[in-house]
Amino acid sequence: MDSATALYLAGKKFCPTALIFDYGQRHKREIESAEKIAKKAHCQYKIVRVDLPRKGSALLDRKVAVPVRRSIKEIKLGIPPTYVPARNLIFLSVATSFAESIRARAIFIGAHSQDNPAYPDCSKTFFNIFKDVIATGTKYGKHIRIHVPLLHKKKSEIVKIGFRLKVPFELTWSCYRGGRKPCGICDSCIFRKRAFEELGIEDPYHA
Amino acid sequence: MDSATALYLAGKKFCPTALIFDYGQRHKREIESAEKIAKKAHCQYKIVRVDLPRKGSALLDRKVAVPVRRSIKEIKLGIPPTYVPARNLIFLSVATSFAESIRARAIFIGAHSQDNPAYPDCSKTFFNIFKDVIATGTKYGKHIRIHVPLLHKKKSEIVKIGFRLKVPFELTWSCYRGGRKPCGICDSCIFRKRAFEELGIEDPYHA
Repeated sequence: MDSATALYLAGKKFCPTALIFDYGQRHKREIESAEKIAKKAHCQYKIVRVDLPRKGSALLDRKVAVPVRRSIKEIKLGIPPTYVPARNLIFLSVATSFAESIRARAIFIGAHSQDNPAYPDCSKTFFNIFKDVIATGTKYGKHIRIHVPLLHKKKSEIVKIGFRLKVPFELTWSCYRGGRKPCGICDSCIFRKRAFEELGIEDPYHA
Repeated sequence: MDSATALYLAGKKFCPTALIFDYGQRHKREIESAEKIAKKAHCQYKIVRVDLPRKGSALLDRKVAVPVRRSIKEIKLGIPPTYVPARNLIFLSVATSFAESIRARAIFIGAHSQDNPAYPDCSKTFFNIFKDVIATGTKYGKHIRIHVPLLHKKKSEIVKIGFRLKVPFELTWSCYRGGRKPCGICDSCIFRKRAFEELGIEDPYHA
């Protein structure tokens, strides 16, 4: 939902190329969804494979359980087992490479710090330092802007913005657990459900 | 030569895992070499695939020629077409992910700024900011040290250090052009040749 909304926001001013990451996530299903969304948005897209270590994250290692049925308070307590080591850093670094290659002026990322303030790679400080790192360590990095348009938005606000932009939320995938249908009880499903509830709208998702 | 020497330097104090990147480089042959070197060093290793954009680098795009027969002065004139957008940033970001996953305390990289001061991702400033980015944007990044032991070394000094550590230089691969034998005339072959000449030693390379 976040990435799709960021894509549609980017599309208002730019002609974005969507990067869809295949990093061994157990919810591979999101790759299919992302492809459909990019097509719907009439965007170019590229599926980028990056090998990440299996060990150390519930999203990559099937031996580590994805937490379920947690309250919002519990979820926000610390960095959850679904944290993927250095994920946004890798996504942004690869995006920088693509941006340099086509001389793109901007990178959009759908990160938002409201859902889980514990993810260190969703903080404003991180994005600011990342700007410095590409300004110093790449050829065109100083001309690339990093846009994090949802950084201070709550999930329900993202849904609102998305509806305005006609984001096809019915195609978006949130569930972490990798089934063919959303489980409804992982942290990500819980946040999604709550966002629609807050707005009093039915989730348009259909398989 | 640089990565192999960095691996052997790391081996003096740590038990390193070698990350070997398959990023679509035309000199794929270096992957074979890196594997042989890791085995020789009795190290664990992992071949990591990362999809990078073909466009924009002579190492990835066969339509862009690898420069040949250039003088050292010409080579050092600016960022060469063999620059791969954001390569070291991506390598280090993926290495950080692996380091977090196994709780490693250090990452070694064989970058050296003497050969080509024009590569922006080989500068001291870049490595320093990278430290900040992982301290801020990852879970364990503040406990990971980035070692760039060859940063201020010339290629001939790297050879000297390598000989002392018994680095199997006969297995190392330098050529950019992706043939089955080193071309002898690309920038990388030229630097290699000069390093051995400076020391008055024969290059032990054998196919």
